[in-house]
Amino acid sequence: MKPMESGFRPVDDILDRVSSPEELRALPREQVPAVAAALRHEIVERVAKTGGHLASSLGAVELITGIHTVFDTPRDRLVLDVGHQGYAHKMLTGRRAGFDRIGKEDGIGKFLRRSESRYDCFGAGHAGTSISAALGMARAMEHRGEPHCAIAMIGDGGMTAGMAFEALNHAGDLRQKNLVVVLNDNEMSISPNVGALSSYLSRKLSAPMVRRMKGWAKEFLTSMPGDMLHWAQKAEESLKVFFSPGLLFEALGFKYVGPIQGHRIEVVLETFENVKQMLANGDGPILVHALTAKGYGYEPAQRDPFKYHGVGKFDVESGEFHKGKPGPPKYQVVFADTLIRLAQEDDRILGITAAMADGTSLDRFKKVFPDRFYDVGIAEQHAVTFAAGLAAQGMKPVAAIYSTFLQRAYDQVVHDVCVQNLDVTLAMDRAGLVGADGATHQGMYDVSYLRTLPNIIVMAPKDENELQHMLRTAVEYDGPAAIRYPRGAGFGVPMDPEVKAVPVGKAELLRDGDDALVIAYGTLAHAALEAAEELAADGISAAVLNARFAKPLDAERILELARRAGAVVTVEEHAGMGGFGSAVLEALAEAGVVVPTRCLAVPDRLVEHGDPASQCHAMGLDAEGIARAARELVGRRPPRG
Amino acid sequence: MKPMESGFRPVDDILDRVSSPEELRALPREQVPAVAAALRHEIVERVAKTGGHLASSLGAVELITGIHTVFDTPRDRLVLDVGHQGYAHKMLTGRRAGFDRIGKEDGIGKFLRRSESRYDCFGAGHAGTSISAALGMARAMEHRGEPHCAIAMIGDGGMTAGMAFEALNHAGDLRQKNLVVVLNDNEMSISPNVGALSSYLSRKLSAPMVRRMKGWAKEFLTSMPGDMLHWAQKAEESLKVFFSPGLLFEALGFKYVGPIQGHRIEVVLETFENVKQMLANGDGPILVHALTAKGYGYEPAQRDPFKYHGVGKFDVESGEFHKGKPGPPKYQVVFADTLIRLAQEDDRILGITAAMADGTSLDRFKKVFPDRFYDVGIAEQHAVTFAAGLAAQGMKPVAAIYSTFLQRAYDQVVHDVCVQNLDVTLAMDRAGLVGADGATHQGMYDVSYLRTLPNIIVMAPKDENELQHMLRTAVEYDGPAAIRYPRGAGFGVPMDPEVKAVPVGKAELLRDGDDALVIAYGTLAHAALEAAEELAADGISAAVLNARFAKPLDAERILELARRAGAVVTVEEHAGMGGFGSAVLEALAEAGVVVPTRCLAVPDRLVEHGDPASQCHAMGLDAEGIARAARELVGRRPPRG
Repeated sequence: MKPMESGFRPVDDILDRVSSPEELRALPREQVPAVAAALRHEIVERVAKTGGHLASSLGAVELITGIHTVFDTPRDRLVLDVGHQGYAHKMLTGRRAGFDRIGKEDGIGKFLRRSESRYDCFGAGHAGTSISAALGMARAMEHRGEPHCAIAMIGDGGMTAGMAFEALNHAGDLRQKNLVVVLNDNEMSISPNVGALSSYLSRKLSAPMVRRMKGWAKEFLTSMPGDMLHWAQKAEESLKVFFSPGLLFEALGFKYVGPIQGHRIEVVLETFENVKQMLANGDGPILVHALTAKGYGYEPAQRDPFKYHGVGKFDVESGEFHKGKPGPPKYQVVFADTLIRLAQEDDRILGITAAMADGTSLDRFKKVFPDRFYDVGIAEQHAVTFAAGLAAQGMKPVAAIYSTFLQRAYDQVVHDVCVQNLDVTLAMDRAGLVGADGATHQGMYDVSYLRTLPNIIVMAPKDENELQHMLRTAVEYDGPAAIRYPRGAGFGVPMDPEVKAVPVGKAELLRDGDDALVIAYGTLAHAALEAAEELAADGISAAVLNARFAKPLDAERILELARRAGAVVTVEEHAGMGGFGSAVLEALAEAGVVVPTRCLAVPDRLVEHGDPASQCHAMGLDAEGIARAARELVGRRPPRG
Repeated sequence: MKPMESGFRPVDDILDRVSSPEELRALPREQVPAVAAALRHEIVERVAKTGGHLASSLGAVELITGIHTVFDTPRDRLVLDVGHQGYAHKMLTGRRAGFDRIGKEDGIGKFLRRSESRYDCFGAGHAGTSISAALGMARAMEHRGEPHCAIAMIGDGGMTAGMAFEALNHAGDLRQKNLVVVLNDNEMSISPNVGALSSYLSRKLSAPMVRRMKGWAKEFLTSMPGDMLHWAQKAEESLKVFFSPGLLFEALGFKYVGPIQGHRIEVVLETFENVKQMLANGDGPILVHALTAKGYGYEPAQRDPFKYHGVGKFDVESGEFHKGKPGPPKYQVVFADTLIRLAQEDDRILGITAAMADGTSLDRFKKVFPDRFYDVGIAEQHAVTFAAGLAAQGMKPVAAIYSTFLQRAYDQVVHDVCVQNLDVTLAMDRAGLVGADGATHQGMYDVSYLRTLPNIIVMAPKDENELQHMLRTAVEYDGPAAIRYPRGAGFGVPMDPEVKAVPVGKAELLRDGDDALVIAYGTLAHAALEAAEELAADGISAAVLNARFAKPLDAERILELARRAGAVVTVEEHAGMGGFGSAVLEALAEAGVVVPTRCLAVPDRLVEHGDPASQCHAMGLDAEGIARAARELVGRRPPRG
């Protein structure tokens, strides 16, 4: 089986002639299909070499090509939800060359960024924001009297985010005439989609709807004179068409167009031409429902779009991934496997994810405990309050949510978990630097936004072995508990066979010393130990404390060691403002312990995509940086030469 | 006109015999209407004396009475959304006596609290959480094999919150058989409801829906033989019935019951009996759509439910509010009137609220600029990203959202405003202690959760005069800006006639001094000045700095003054962890300025309802507390006797 549909590659590379939407629009319309085909080919070739978001981008090629062909971008504003689907958009807007270094420090970003292109009208990274943003833009254009439209392109996964619904509700109420929402419906979010909406969109009508339909057909027809039974069936059939997914959107005041075949470029072009005419007639807001397939056109990805969502390098012919060297276990796997062990002992333990079963490795838990696993879709708010409801009835839910996505559920953490002091565990995956995903995805604020809340305990393991013990601590703790841990592989430290809870609020002294105290929160504890070695070589005796808890802080231990050492360095992979270092400063101030302290953390600016290790190095968050800070603090420079 | 419907008051006080749902259920069913009537009467009488949430509670009397009569509470779990509607529930569950001190330090809370009653299965305060919580409970009961149900009661306002939609989507997908959602539809949230959903619920069909209906009727009937024009009209009529609001919920997998008249107690009882039977038949999840009227049964409140949403004391006969003494202007009014002045100069300025036009006083702005005012409903997430979309097109949106409600939009502030560095002003109303509204509504975390984010400036005025100047600063600043200010009246300071921006990042020295430095963030600056007077009498010369900005902090000024004074006290009406005081500690540590520092702030525990002034006093957040801290710090006790 050929992995790519045959005949896709045009003879000359048409993309060389189309480096902007203006050039695309200047092409004879009959050449547009060749552009779409070339884009698809190029996406596969490029992603095979660099890794990236393959399946979503393949699924959106025709829709994006169609929009840029028919509409007057960037005067007509295209807002892409998330950005997973954005590669064709990037290629059509002058960024083909950047793909060699996508997600790298000096390359283009994986998502959309206003700073990267004037065609990126609105930044994206988290799902569900596009309709709100496009509505704001459409409204602004109306205020300014600009005769252009805004187009939000959103997946059926993003549509399950509550804020998408809030935006539809407002847009329908405003009757926003210059707004188009393109629903890119591939029946998946990142993993197979969940939720009643998804069933409805794919016309799997709910039982109550079918009942209502039958009831109505019967009632109406029996009201007719004579024998109309023949028509009863017809009425029911025709009602089924009537019951297209359009109803839901029309109830909210949108004009519904669709469903259309989103990979037939001629259909897509014709549809958007019609939509443009409808807008001119004042028929907005309009929802275009396009049926697409993730991974379309590249056979391995289409067969398993889930596997090809975000990929590493692979072989185009075979679809096989280039295997990396076997390495230490990922934090994600340690988390999931430990949760399975704990759940085997305690049947109150449940696993919850918001469309990230694969990313969090909670799919491993699902395999063992399918009935105790919940994927709520892209709906972090609901995930957290749902967990609170479970906990209010004595269950022990563990919600695995990336640090950056937990921001979406902040009020629920405050209002439904912490204020009520409920027994919910928040497993905050991808805390700290996330690498190629960039500024929208950095897990950089969780210590600040969580430790200010009453009742919650907030912790971070120094390595994958400690993660397993801390997960037990969190689950056994009868109240809100949060653990942050990084993306990817651990250190390869030996794993204790027995999973034992670490005591709440107790730090761990890794190395004793008299001249300086280094307090590490999280995995930088290992760098702190290295730094202490370096410092010892310079004659500086540094104690290293693995803080374990940002809250409750082990103030007693910290104060005792700080008093003795007379100089404190804190280190964390988190924003400096309000983070772990500040917690230490607060404890010192409160106790009246006045010692020079340096807080090493991420400085107050966005961290863009790049390699975490070199980013950490540049910010002084490694052994070298820690040693340097300690030296400066104790006033001893390293001997020269 | 009589304010109460005549004949409502029963001869004996039936409520004396019904102090629990168990007693209610033991009553002969024909006496239940008298209970409902007595509850309504009692609510009016009680709220007239104490103030409280009148209109919503009157609108929910029959539904709550019906649920407690028919269902086996608290084994069947009733989860009320928000809690505005909860007075009948509180009275029926043994808390009548507590109403004399509702919202007071030693009284019952205004909302629901698990700590207050075993009938309060889940705490509530913010809208939209009930379906998620009830679904979690229902699921937990299923896991445990408990044969009970969970009932979420939610207003049509709460239903516009995105998380309610997320929960419906998940509940429908799970086909949760022991779940009931009661939609208490009074066509209002706190103010008249907005949004396309609201129109749909009240059967004001959208234009596209009407078109679709007509189209279908025509198509179906022309397919019939002979002259069927007579039936075309009938089909259309009958489709209108068919198009009841049920469709939307049935699309999401719920069985729809309604709409029912929510004030006819016999209808309510019969409906819930049917629902109970349907649950037994496995017909869940069920949505009961009840039509109610806010303020029902008390004529003044029913006529103007908006005015009687949350009220002070009033006269039952006339419905007139007891007027307080005229006092200084509220911060809310200063905010709104200043915004009007600024908007008169700059037509890019827009006002946005999330269902709090009255509470934020933005209704004043609406009167002057109806076309530049947006109420998006209870949808803070959308409000913030909508604002970001407007800003991306060069407008200057000002979103007025309570500090506690902005938590709901945290990810949008991070991802759509700060990461993109867009020119959005966040006016954070009700920051600090909120008094009677209690723990769920304290504006206690905003400094921590905002100042950790890049690009944003974060400020607080010392009084209402400075608020007007700061609002200009925020609006003129070309990037994200947040201002926090308290609920209620200002100090009555003279108002400058001209509104002049304060310089970004610059503090204001209110009083110079050599022995100690008191840095106040926000309105406690006035208490700090008083404290300095007290200290002067003791021979301690204290400088007082009005910080103005938590970010960017005026580090230069603070360091200079701190070095000179050698002792620093910070004070703020905000959680201590990660707050303004921590920002000062960070600046001192970074500069290597080692001085004893005391951070006065709200300690790390929930603050329940009560009087803000006495709560502040108890926490040391007043002149006395500041002076005490300064004295301790400089090591000088006041002379005795």
